[in-house]
Amino acid sequence: MSHNSFGHLFRVTTWGESHGPAIGCVVDGCPPGIPLTEADIQPWLDKRRPGQSKFTTQRQEADQVRILSGVFEDEETGGQVTTGTPIALQIENIDQRSKDYSDIKDKFRPGHADYTYWQKYGVRDYRGGGRSSARETACRVAAGAVARKVLNHLIPGGVAVRGALVQVGNEHIDRAKWNWAELENNPFFCPDADAAKAWEPYIDGIRKAGSSIGAVIEVIAEGVPAGLGAPIYGKLDSDIAGALMTINAAKGVEIGAGFGAAALTGEDNADEMIRAGNKINFTANHAGGILGGISSGQPIVARFAVKPTSSILTPRKTVTKDGAETDITTKGRHDPCVGIRAVPIGEAMVACVLADHALRHLGQGLKFDQ
Amino acid sequence: MSHNSFGHLFRVTTWGESHGPAIGCVVDGCPPGIPLTEADIQPWLDKRRPGQSKFTTQRQEADQVRILSGVFEDEETGGQVTTGTPIALQIENIDQRSKDYSDIKDKFRPGHADYTYWQKYGVRDYRGGGRSSARETACRVAAGAVARKVLNHLIPGGVAVRGALVQVGNEHIDRAKWNWAELENNPFFCPDADAAKAWEPYIDGIRKAGSSIGAVIEVIAEGVPAGLGAPIYGKLDSDIAGALMTINAAKGVEIGAGFGAAALTGEDNADEMIRAGNKINFTANHAGGILGGISSGQPIVARFAVKPTSSILTPRKTVTKDGAETDITTKGRHDPCVGIRAVPIGEAMVACVLADHALRHLGQGLKFDQ
Amino acid sequence: MSHNSFGHLFRVTTWGESHGPAIGCVVDGCPPGIPLTEADIQPWLDKRRPGQSKFTTQRQEADQVRILSGVFEDEETGGQVTTGTPIALQIENIDQRSKDYSDIKDKFRPGHADYTYWQKYGVRDYRGGGRSSARETACRVAAGAVARKVLNHLIPGGVAVRGALVQVGNEHIDRAKWNWAELENNPFFCPDADAAKAWEPYIDGIRKAGSSIGAVIEVIAEGVPAGLGAPIYGKLDSDIAGALMTINAAKGVEIGAGFGAAALTGEDNADEMIRAGNKINFTANHAGGILGGISSGQPIVARFAVKPTSSILTPRKTVTKDGAETDITTKGRHDPCVGIRAVPIGEAMVACVLADHALRHLGQGLKFDQ
Amino acid sequence: MSHNSFGHLFRVTTWGESHGPAIGCVVDGCPPGIPLTEADIQPWLDKRRPGQSKFTTQRQEADQVRILSGVFEDEETGGQVTTGTPIALQIENIDQRSKDYSDIKDKFRPGHADYTYWQKYGVRDYRGGGRSSARETACRVAAGAVARKVLNHLIPGGVAVRGALVQVGNEHIDRAKWNWAELENNPFFCPDADAAKAWEPYIDGIRKAGSSIGAVIEVIAEGVPAGLGAPIYGKLDSDIAGALMTINAAKGVEIGAGFGAAALTGEDNADEMIRAGNKINFTANHAGGILGGISSGQPIVARFAVKPTSSILTPRKTVTKDGAETDITTKGRHDPCVGIRAVPIGEAMVACVLADHALRHLGQGLKFDQ
Repeated sequence: MSHNSFGHLFRVTTWGESHGPAIGCVVDGCPPGIPLTEADIQPWLDKRRPGQSKFTTQRQEADQVRILSGVFEDEETGGQVTTGTPIALQIENIDQRSKDYSDIKDKFRPGHADYTYWQKYGVRDYRGGGRSSARETACRVAAGAVARKVLNHLIPGGVAVRGALVQVGNEHIDRAKWNWAELENNPFFCPDADAAKAWEPYIDGIRKAGSSIGAVIEVIAEGVPAGLGAPIYGKLDSDIAGALMTINAAKGVEIGAGFGAAALTGEDNADEMIRAGNKINFTANHAGGILGGISSGQPIVARFAVKPTSSILTPRKTVTKDGAETDITTKGRHDPCVGIRAVPIGEAMVACVLADHALRHLGQGLKFDQ
Repeated sequence: MSHNSFGHLFRVTTWGESHGPAIGCVVDGCPPGIPLTEADIQPWLDKRRPGQSKFTTQRQEADQVRILSGVFEDEETGGQVTTGTPIALQIENIDQRSKDYSDIKDKFRPGHADYTYWQKYGVRDYRGGGRSSARETACRVAAGAVARKVLNHLIPGGVAVRGALVQVGNEHIDRAKWNWAELENNPFFCPDADAAKAWEPYIDGIRKAGSSIGAVIEVIAEGVPAGLGAPIYGKLDSDIAGALMTINAAKGVEIGAGFGAAALTGEDNADEMIRAGNKINFTANHAGGILGGISSGQPIVARFAVKPTSSILTPRKTVTKDGAETDITTKGRHDPCVGIRAVPIGEAMVACVLADHALRHLGQGLKFDQ
Repeated sequence: MSHNSFGHLFRVTTWGESHGPAIGCVVDGCPPGIPLTEADIQPWLDKRRPGQSKFTTQRQEADQVRILSGVFEDEETGGQVTTGTPIALQIENIDQRSKDYSDIKDKFRPGHADYTYWQKYGVRDYRGGGRSSARETACRVAAGAVARKVLNHLIPGGVAVRGALVQVGNEHIDRAKWNWAELENNPFFCPDADAAKAWEPYIDGIRKAGSSIGAVIEVIAEGVPAGLGAPIYGKLDSDIAGALMTINAAKGVEIGAGFGAAALTGEDNADEMIRAGNKINFTANHAGGILGGISSGQPIVARFAVKPTSSILTPRKTVTKDGAETDITTKGRHDPCVGIRAVPIGEAMVACVLADHALRHLGQGLKFDQ
Repeated sequence: MSHNSFGHLFRVTTWGESHGPAIGCVVDGCPPGIPLTEADIQPWLDKRRPGQSKFTTQRQEADQVRILSGVFEDEETGGQVTTGTPIALQIENIDQRSKDYSDIKDKFRPGHADYTYWQKYGVRDYRGGGRSSARETACRVAAGAVARKVLNHLIPGGVAVRGALVQVGNEHIDRAKWNWAELENNPFFCPDADAAKAWEPYIDGIRKAGSSIGAVIEVIAEGVPAGLGAPIYGKLDSDIAGALMTINAAKGVEIGAGFGAAALTGEDNADEMIRAGNKINFTANHAGGILGGISSGQPIVARFAVKPTSSILTPRKTVTKDGAETDITTKGRHDPCVGIRAVPIGEAMVACVLADHALRHLGQGLKFDQ
C-alpha cells in the first residue's frame, strides 16, 4: 500500500513538492522492448505545461523530462527501448519564484489542502502548496505517455485516449458539433469551434475579475477491445472513477450516461445488441463502454467535474494556525479555470488505468485476440 | 492485487455466485478486542434483504449470516470479541429457484455483464447472473457492519454512516424536508415524507409496467475527525468514488457539490473558515468534507447514480452466442428501482473505506485525538 | 496488505481456527477454463492428513474439501472448469475433541505462539492453538493443488513440484540413493530406502519417549522454464524463502548450495554453461536453478529446516498469564517429527509461488515459449 | 505489486542501473515529524561504500546521497523533519569507468544474472551488470537509515540493528569472543578480534589469486518489544527471510537456531520461560526472538549465507548469445568476499522489515507500551 503510487501491474510512484529541487516518478511494470525516448514523453508534458496562454497560470516551467533508468540500446534496431526495469522520470523545478510565503504559511486558504494537511501531519511544505500542488500532475502526464506506448504495444490496433473540455461554468458544448481537430484551434481543448469562440471572452472576463470557474472534462478511449477490466472490486469503471477523482479539484466522475441514467427508464437506457457483419455492435452507448466492470468493445466514455479554484482575488474569511479569524486573498499566478489543464491530466490517468488493466488481463492468463 | 478484495488494512475478500451453495467473505485486518456477534451484522443484512416490499425483487432469502472464524470469548467480559485473525462470514443461498435458464444461457442480456464476462473468460455461471449478480453485495453489507464497529472502536465519539434515496427518475427530494427519522416510515429509504408519498404510486406504476427506473443515493458520514485520508493516490474521495462505482449499476459518483461545482465561481464555491468557540468551522460544505483527499472535520457527503436495471418486460434486440440476432425479455423477479436496495450497500462501502483509512492513519504513525 | 493472504496474482487468503467450525481459503486469480473438481484437490490433502501412521498426530480429520464457488460446467466438454472468479475451498473441523483446555488457557507453552499472540492481541482462541495451529496448512495444500493445475495450464510441458524428507535429527539421507518412487514405500516421504528403514526405529523411539525431533525438507521443481521470477524485490528465491518460512516450525531456508556456498570458492561454486544440442546447459546446479532472482531452466532446489515441536512429555518451566512461574507438560496427540507432514506443505507453498510468478511473467507482457 | 518495491507501510521503491546517470529510491510511508537530513543517511552509505580497503572492489564512488523531497523545516525546532510525503533519495553514478564491455555484452557470465535477464527480457543493460548490479544495494542502505529513524521514533527505548560477519569460507568466529566494538577495528565487520586477524591473510590470499569465497552474515536486532509481527503470511521471520534473500548472492537464511534446529530434540530446543523481576524472560533463544511469526521480546537473530562471487580470474566455460561455446574470465574491480559489504546491507533490510512491521502493528489498531 502506498499513498503515492497508482496502479498494480503498471505502477506509478510519484514524489516531489512544488518548490523542491525537482519532481519525479518511477514507472514500474513496463514491458521490455518498447521504443521509448524523452521525445515520446515531452509533447504530452508540453500540452499540460503552464503559461502557454493567458488562460492558464503564468508560472514558467520548461518541464523538460529526463529518463534516468529503465531504457537501453536495443541490439537489433540500435534504438533505445525499455528493459523491463523501473523507469525513473525526473523534472526539475525551475521557476520557484522566491517570494514571501508569510500569508499562506500561517493562514489556511479555504478550499485548499492547507488545513487538512496540517491537521493530519502537523507539518507541511507550504511553498506553492507543496505536495498538494497541481505541479505533481506533470508526473502523471509523463507516466501517461509511457502508458500509451504500453497500450499500443499490447493491444492489436492500438488505443487512442483523448480528452476535451465539454463544459465551463454553465456553458456547454454542442455535442453535434464535436470535432477532435478543433482542439488544436483553441486554448481550451474544446471540440466545438463555436463554443470555444464564446468561451474566450467568458473565461477572460473571469480571469480579469480575479475570479475562477468550474468545468467538466470528457475522456474517450477508442480501440479498447471487449474483455478489459475485471469484476467486483477491480472494475474498470471503478478504477477510472477512482483515478479521475485523484486529480486536484475533481468533485465528480461519471461513465457513459452517468448521473443522467438516474432519470432514465430501462427502455430508454437500453444499449441493444445487433450484428454488424461478423461483429457484434450496440445501438447506443449509455453504458460508456463498460458492463459489469468489463469493457464491451464500445468507446469508453468518462467525464469528471472540477471545482473552481479557491485562489481568487475576493477576500475570504479564514483562520490562522493559532485559531484567530482573518481574511485571505490569493494574489499571483493562478488558473481562472483549472479544467483546461485538467484535460491532458485526465487523459493520462485513463491511459494509466487501461495500461494497468491490459497487463492485469494478461496476468490472469488471458490474451488479446490478434 | 486481487479483483475480489477491497481495502488495504481493513481488507474484505468476497466469493460466491448467485446460485452456488453459498456466498461469503473474509474480513482481514480487524483489530482485536471488539465485541462482535452475528447479531451485530444481521440487522444491516435485513435492510438489504430482498422481498421486503413489493418494490424490490421477490426472491426469498433469509440471508442469515454465520461467523466462522476470527472471534472468541473475551476473558474479562465473557462476551465474544474479535481476535485480530480473519473473520469469515458466510450466507447460504436458499432460494436458488430451479428454473429454465436456456434464455440467458445462450442470449446476452443487453446492459448486463453477460456479454463482457463471456468475452473475457469464455465461460460463466449464467444462473441468476452468477458472480455478477447483486447477490454479492450481501457480503459487502456484512463487512460494512464490521467496519462500523471498527470505526466506533478507533475514533473517539464514533462515526455514523447513513444513506438515503434522494432521486428516483426525475423525482427529487426537497432537501429542506430532510428528516433521517422518515427512513423508517417508507420502503424507499427516503428522508422526505412528502417525496416518499409521491414515489409510491410512481414506482408502483413502473413495477406494474414491467419497466425500471434509475436513482441517486446519498451517503453521509458524520463524526469523521479532520485528518482522515491521504494525499495523491490514497485520497479519501478517490477511494469513496472507486468504492461506490463498484456497486452494481452505478454510473456516477460525486462528492459535496459534485458536478454542480462545475457551474460555480470561486466565490460561490468557497467554504469559508470561521471560529466556533475553540473549534474551527466552515460556512458551507461544498467540499463534502474532503480537501486535498483528507477529511476536514465536516460531514462527508457522497452521492452515486444507478442506472435502471435492464431487466424489463419490453423485448429488446440482442444476439446469441453464435452471433444470431434475436429478442430477449426478462421475466421473473426483479427490482423496478435497484436504487432502493443500493442504499444500505452504499453505506457499507463508505463505512469500509473509512475503516480502512482509520487504520491507514494509525499505520502512518499518526493518532486520533482523544 | 493482508497478513492472511499469500501471493499477488495467484492469491490465497486463508481463514479459520483449529477448533472453530471450519477452515477455508479463497483462491483468487486462477485463470478460467481449467478443469477442476474436488477430486483434483483431495489426494494432496490426504497426503498431509493427520493420523495416517503412528508417526504423525492421531487427530482424526477426514479433511474433505468442498469447492463453494469459482467453477462451472464447461459448455463444450460438459466438465467442471474454473471461471476466473474466486474459488472458495472449505474443510469442516470434525475432531474438535472436547477436552479440558485449562492447562494451555492460562499457561504459555514455551516455543509456541501462545505468548506472542497474547502479547500482541490480548485475546486468542487457545483451543488447539487456534489460528496458529498447523491445521491452517490444510488450506495451503488445497490451494497448492489448484496452483499445480495453473502451472500445467500455463507452462508448456508442465511443472512437477515434489518434496522429500532429507534429514531427521542428525540422520541424513544418502543423496546417491535418491529415488522418488521410494516415497510411496515409507511413512516419512523419504527418497532413500535404507535411510527410511533406519529412521523407523529412531523416530519411533522419540515418539515413545514423548520427545520430538527436527528435520530438513527438500522441494524440487522440474520443468520451470528459464525466465520465471523477477529482479530485486520480486526474486523467485526470495519469494520461495519467504513462503517456506511461513510454515509452522520453519527456522531456515536455503536455495541450491545454500549455507554450504559460504564455504566454497568461486571456482568450486561455478555452474559452467555448455551447449547440449540446441539448448544451453549447466555443468552443475549450485545455484538451485535461480540466478539474479530469475529461473535458469535448471531444476529449482529449495530446502527448509523445521525445529522439533515443543509439545513434549518432559515438563518445562513456564509462566502463567498472571506471571507466576509454573511447569507445563504437553499431553495428547502430537507429531514426534513435524517435518514429515511438512513435506506436502512445502510442496504446496513452492507450487503457489511458481503459479504466482507464472502469472506475473504474463502480467509483464511476456510469454512462455511454446 | 511491484518487483522493485519493498515493504507495505514503510515502502521503498528503488530504480537505476550500475552505469546509468544515477540510482535512487522513493521511501513512502515515513511518519511525519522525524528529524532527517542527509547527515543521518550518509554514514551508513559510507559503511557500504566500495574501495575502502583492499578487500572490497576498487570502484570509486562518493555515494553522496541527496534528499529531493519529503522533508521540510519544522516550525518549532527550525530543524528539517519528515512531512509524511514521499522521500526521494538519489545518488549519482560517478565512476562509470568507460571501458570495453564487448566481453560481457555477448557472453553470459556463469553465476550471474546475465543469462536469466536475457532469457526473460530479451534486452538488458549489460554495463556493470545493469540493474542486477549490487550497486542497487546503496539505495537499500539509504532507506535503511530512514527505517532506523522510524523505529526509534515509534518504539519506546529504540531499536538497535547490528550485523557482523561470522563466517568466511570455512573460517568461523568464536562466539564466546563476540565483541561489537571490534567491528571498528577490522575491515570485515568481524566481532572476534582473533578471527579478524586470521581472516586478513586468508582473504588477501583469495584476492591475490583472483578467486573469491562465500560467507555468513548475522544480523541482530535488540530492543524489539514482544508483539511485533503477524501470523500466517505476514510472519516477521518470513519477511526477514524474504528480505535477506533479495540481497545479491544470498543463498540461505536462518532464524535463531536455524538449520541447527533440525538436529535438536524438543528438550534441547526449548526456550523455557521464567520470571525476571516484573518481566518474563527466556532461558535460551533458539527461537531467535520470534514465535509464531511474532516477536517475543528477545533479540531477533537472523543469519544469511552469500555465495562466492563468480567473477574470478580462472577461465570458465560459457556460451555466447548465439549459443557458441567459449571461455570467460572476469578482469577488473571485484570483491574477493562479497559477504563483507553485505553486512550493512543485511542490517538495512532487517531495519526496513522492522519499521514496516512497526507501522503494520499500529495499522492494526494496536499500540506500543510506553
